[in-house]
Amino acid sequence: MHDILIQEDILSKNDEIAQENREMLRERGIFSINMVSSPGSGKTSIIEKTVGLVKELLNLAVIEGDIQTDLDAQRIKRHGIPVKQITTGRTCHLDAHMVHHALPWLFGHKDIKFLIIENVGNMVCPAEYDLGEDMKVAVMSVTEGDDKPLKYPAMFSASQVLLINKIDLLPYTDFNMQRARENALRINPDLLVLETSCVKGSGFSDWCEFLLRSAGADTGPAIKSLIK
Amino acid sequence: MHDILIQEDILSKNDEIAQENREMLRERGIFSINMVSSPGSGKTSIIEKTVGLVKELLNLAVIEGDIQTDLDAQRIKRHGIPVKQITTGRTCHLDAHMVHHALPWLFGHKDIKFLIIENVGNMVCPAEYDLGEDMKVAVMSVTEGDDKPLKYPAMFSASQVLLINKIDLLPYTDFNMQRARENALRINPDLLVLETSCVKGSGFSDWCEFLLRSAGADTGPAIKSLIK
Repeated sequence: MHDILIQEDILSKNDEIAQENREMLRERGIFSINMVSSPGSGKTSIIEKTVGLVKELLNLAVIEGDIQTDLDAQRIKRHGIPVKQITTGRTCHLDAHMVHHALPWLFGHKDIKFLIIENVGNMVCPAEYDLGEDMKVAVMSVTEGDDKPLKYPAMFSASQVLLINKIDLLPYTDFNMQRARENALRINPDLLVLETSCVKGSGFSDWCEFLLRSAGADTGPAIKSLIK
Repeated sequence: MHDILIQEDILSKNDEIAQENREMLRERGIFSINMVSSPGSGKTSIIEKTVGLVKELLNLAVIEGDIQTDLDAQRIKRHGIPVKQITTGRTCHLDAHMVHHALPWLFGHKDIKFLIIENVGNMVCPAEYDLGEDMKVAVMSVTEGDDKPLKYPAMFSASQVLLINKIDLLPYTDFNMQRARENALRINPDLLVLETSCVKGSGFSDWCEFLLRSAGADTGPAIKSLIK
């Protein structure tokens, strides 16, 4: 009970800072997403592929949240866009305060219109911490099992988009796509569900078009052809 | 800083209860393991397969930790052994107090000699909470990437055994087994690393023999043939 009260207090302070972050980002016309998933579901690979496809159309930056190491930030850096590493130490999620400290760095880069925040790999706590993003994007991979939405509902109900990733591995698993979609939509009927594979490139046309639209970028036919 | 002090306090209370649990389990000659991993790495499948192989040789029970649902407990129950579900709600890990409350249930079953605790799927916080177990067993699957030990070191340094699971999927991923082993042993040079596949049964002979020996069960040739 005591622990829960402490947690409520921490969360309400977090929400205040998140709201500040949100206003600061919106004032500058920066659309932002917060990517959440279990470790190893493919968030970094999805970001790398997304950056490669949209960076010519939209100035973007990435904030990488990790317990330890800057391995993911190094991967993103190769794509020639601004990347900021937040190392959380013993904390199993990013919070609004950590992101707040990264905003001066972000605003130091000219004309950024899209911010991707990669959260710590964890299906539980990241769902509870608003960072001030426009939307949370959940990722789950087909090797994790189709029951994940039922077992970790908070992450799925807090997200607007679900990417079901690594669909190239479908033939080698007993993952049931229809059951996974039903489970996810039972938790959150408004979820946009997309199926992706970083290996084959499947689903990235729809995903990138959705992002560009959400970020208010021009999505004319020229752009469509670029991301196909 | 304040948050860290609160956390230290919670952890030191946890350690006291864990020590009590440990003494109570040892008094009754119950060997116990605490299985930790990210969601979807295959902990429940490993437990199911392990139970099937060793239940004739050793009386065992399972405690299932989940945020929501008793889906995993239902899976274990089919094997005809005692299972207790702990639903943690918003808490991203089991703690010693939760397990303490399950001990009267456990001690109500006669002659249990081996307890498997399946923790909440999370690579971060479960590593910090001693439950009173004899050993932590970490699981990572080949689809999660070979860099996981570097990114989530606490789980690997707190564990005595690492099961690298889903090795049947190795041909379809870019997972480098040698690099994964090197990364894991760099974090914890004493780690026993075994490679497993629940689909093919690989590694279960060594894993079950190790468990039976650790639990002090007879591991004569008859047993060896049973688990082969």
